[in-house]
Amino acid sequence: MQAIVLFAHGARDPEWARPFQRIRALVEQRLPSVPLRLAFLEAMQPDLAHAIDELAAQGSTHVSIVPLFMAQGGHLRQDVPRLLETIRQRHANITLTLGSPIGEVDAILQQIAQWIVAEHVQ
Amino acid sequence: MQAIVLFAHGARDPEWARPFQRIRALVEQRLPSVPLRLAFLEAMQPDLAHAIDELAAQGSTHVSIVPLFMAQGGHLRQDVPRLLETIRQRHANITLTLGSPIGEVDAILQQIAQWIVAEHVQ
Repeated sequence: MQAIVLFAHGARDPEWARPFQRIRALVEQRLPSVPLRLAFLEAMQPDLAHAIDELAAQGSTHVSIVPLFMAQGGHLRQDVPRLLETIRQRHANITLTLGSPIGEVDAILQQIAQWIVAEHVQ
Repeated sequence: MQAIVLFAHGARDPEWARPFQRIRALVEQRLPSVPLRLAFLEAMQPDLAHAIDELAAQGSTHVSIVPLFMAQGGHLRQDVPRLLETIRQRHANITLTLGSPIGEVDAILQQIAQWIVAEHVQ
């Protein structure tokens, strides 16, 4: 069974998570039968390992991790692969895949640019 | 004269800036007559103050700062207002406005959700 983890940076301010909760709700509406979690790298719960433990306990065999980061920096290049290594050792029967960050999806960058332009046309 | 600063977090890895450079290029194509800068909070150049000094020297009187952050956390709530205060003291003749982060624009969250769904429909 395929599951999805939306994976965001995390912050101390609980309000920070709102856009990610909104994305989660939108994805849930459109894929109601896919187990879905929102997890965080730091400062917020659940962390990635905990989210995947839960999905594993519910029978997921393939977890697709979608990094809700604007760009690929040290977190995605170094911290996350290390995290995945540890999680893979605990869940040998689960396939984990790590997707591209938001900033590598041109349709999203186009949408961002379009919003900026619309806000500034006089 | 109105100018725009696209303002991103910054990271040590130069590759990190690519999505923001792409957004800059897309906005520039559509608003070729608006002075436009990409500036960073940390680890990359120019910083916000330097970008605004340049725009001021070129005659901009209103600078709209667009935070290319996914969500409103400590950086946007605390660090950036402090930065703006310092910059305003140097440039009393320039109006600075700080826009909403990306994650408060529902069309963009919808586009992100749509991309996630498209990647996971079987």
